[in-house]
Amino acid sequence: MRREDQWAVGVDLGGTKVEVAQVAEGGQLRRRVRRPTNVNAGPSIVKEDILVAIRSLLEKEDTKPLGIGVGVAGQVDPKMGVVRFAPNLGWQNVPLQEDLSQASGLPVVVLNDVRAATWGEWLYGAGQGSHDLVCLFVGTGIGGGVVSAGRILNGYNNSAGELGHITIDLSGPLCTCGNRGCLEAFAGGWAIARQAQDAVASDPIAGNHLFKLANGQSTSITAETVSRAAQAGDPLARQLIDRAVEALIAGSVSLVHAFNPHHLIFGGGVTEGQPELVERIAQGVYRRALKVAAASLQILPAKLGGDAGVIGAAAFAIRLFTHPSPASTL
Amino acid sequence: MRREDQWAVGVDLGGTKVEVAQVAEGGQLRRRVRRPTNVNAGPSIVKEDILVAIRSLLEKEDTKPLGIGVGVAGQVDPKMGVVRFAPNLGWQNVPLQEDLSQASGLPVVVLNDVRAATWGEWLYGAGQGSHDLVCLFVGTGIGGGVVSAGRILNGYNNSAGELGHITIDLSGPLCTCGNRGCLEAFAGGWAIARQAQDAVASDPIAGNHLFKLANGQSTSITAETVSRAAQAGDPLARQLIDRAVEALIAGSVSLVHAFNPHHLIFGGGVTEGQPELVERIAQGVYRRALKVAAASLQILPAKLGGDAGVIGAAAFAIRLFTHPSPASTL
Repeated sequence: MRREDQWAVGVDLGGTKVEVAQVAEGGQLRRRVRRPTNVNAGPSIVKEDILVAIRSLLEKEDTKPLGIGVGVAGQVDPKMGVVRFAPNLGWQNVPLQEDLSQASGLPVVVLNDVRAATWGEWLYGAGQGSHDLVCLFVGTGIGGGVVSAGRILNGYNNSAGELGHITIDLSGPLCTCGNRGCLEAFAGGWAIARQAQDAVASDPIAGNHLFKLANGQSTSITAETVSRAAQAGDPLARQLIDRAVEALIAGSVSLVHAFNPHHLIFGGGVTEGQPELVERIAQGVYRRALKVAAASLQILPAKLGGDAGVIGAAAFAIRLFTHPSPASTL
Repeated sequence: MRREDQWAVGVDLGGTKVEVAQVAEGGQLRRRVRRPTNVNAGPSIVKEDILVAIRSLLEKEDTKPLGIGVGVAGQVDPKMGVVRFAPNLGWQNVPLQEDLSQASGLPVVVLNDVRAATWGEWLYGAGQGSHDLVCLFVGTGIGGGVVSAGRILNGYNNSAGELGHITIDLSGPLCTCGNRGCLEAFAGGWAIARQAQDAVASDPIAGNHLFKLANGQSTSITAETVSRAAQAGDPLARQLIDRAVEALIAGSVSLVHAFNPHHLIFGGGVTEGQPELVERIAQGVYRRALKVAAASLQILPAKLGGDAGVIGAAAFAIRLFTHPSPASTL
């Protein structure tokens, strides 16, 4: 078989949707099935839904996939392939790898969804060819992944890369994690939305534009509303985005000093489709970071968008099942 | 030759003193020569001083060392063994490895002094046996070193671990690096001293105890003065130490979330000999960090004290010259 004919199934399992895709060894997403996650029905039904989607992909193909890679929004035990805790799914200790493998007859690997997206951007996205990169995914929450000297960092408990919860202001606002001043509490989508809602409530005149965009319901203001208002020139929205940018600069400086990456890659909904935001962050980082740490640093927008997770999960499966590696690289 | 008979020369080259020691393969520091660094005389004289010290160690031994490891307070090109920039020595682009190797006839390796101290604590100190650790050395400045999955992180430019310059308060005080709110600008010895001097100047009554300890010269107040006054119960000094502890907690939480280490080790003059400070930091970190990242975390004082650098430099030489590794592990 030619290398380009080899493929794997990538699964991106989140609290709102499951995406199952056929991904070629070169990283091309060939076919996909997307459906809402049937969270209320429980793990067995969700697993069955995934299997149905996988079978529908297999039917259309002459060749068997190398295996299945599943990225899950939650804590994963990578060796056992067990989903330890996935709050958005309501899962605890679900043996996803074993169940999917038995039912499909294919090798399966399970990893955290942000780790999967990092594999995607590293192998096929903005980080292709890099040996030292940090991916920062700024969505509703903020997560990250780190590659150092050509290896993904997992940490002792497989929890390295909780980059949304680095402290950027030790007396800053409360975060959902219970700590204060986390990067996410400034620049995560939920934080931008909350700051906007608070600002509109406390100054309705300045908040008028945002209020209207949210159809007169200030609790409906999201980070996207703020983003649209800022692009339209609304001063309050611009202030809110400025604050998020300052936070992302401070957090990025910490990451550059901790990891000294060659590439720092921004993905996720907050910066998606806004290369000028990434450029502003980059200028701030170059200005503030130590020269030696930033000398060869490149700061780039992610390339795979929302597909990073599903492509990365498949890419990881391809890599694992063609070149089995020591457990530490899981 | 028995393994315990094997040894290397460790050199710890700083701006005020050079230390040259005989270190056994088991990490024992057997003999040492210490002398002031003749900074004004220039690199050739300093190198000659190092060679004289090395020869004096060699004369007393029947066996030849495996090699020489040199830790330098500055930026090092590890492949070439060139000291790129060492501000305290006034050195730029000094080919230390080549010169020492030619003059001594022994293999030589040069690395940054904080990296060397990390090797020391990892192989023979508080981090022995760990595969995932972060060392934070809190002295006049703050530096660090990180081991992940059994490998030291170097970063793309050999600048990983600039942990004194992670941002813990994006609108915080100016740091010597030019940025604001770095961990070092709160908890480095220079920052503690400066805060104390400012506090004494602005409130001489509260500052009376510190003022007296510094013999009536507020500019003579150092971090050590503050430490002694705090231990004696002086309220102002305690406040200053509390502020440093809070900063170290915030910085440590960031490091735990970024690297998810098994061990977080505190060395350097500010915490040296004060296990209760490390314990306070630990309690704060356990309280604030994500459960999953801190679940198996141990926070410990360093074990090798001021010898970490010289032992680590020798340990690195022993490891390198008995089991040559790929360049990436330098």
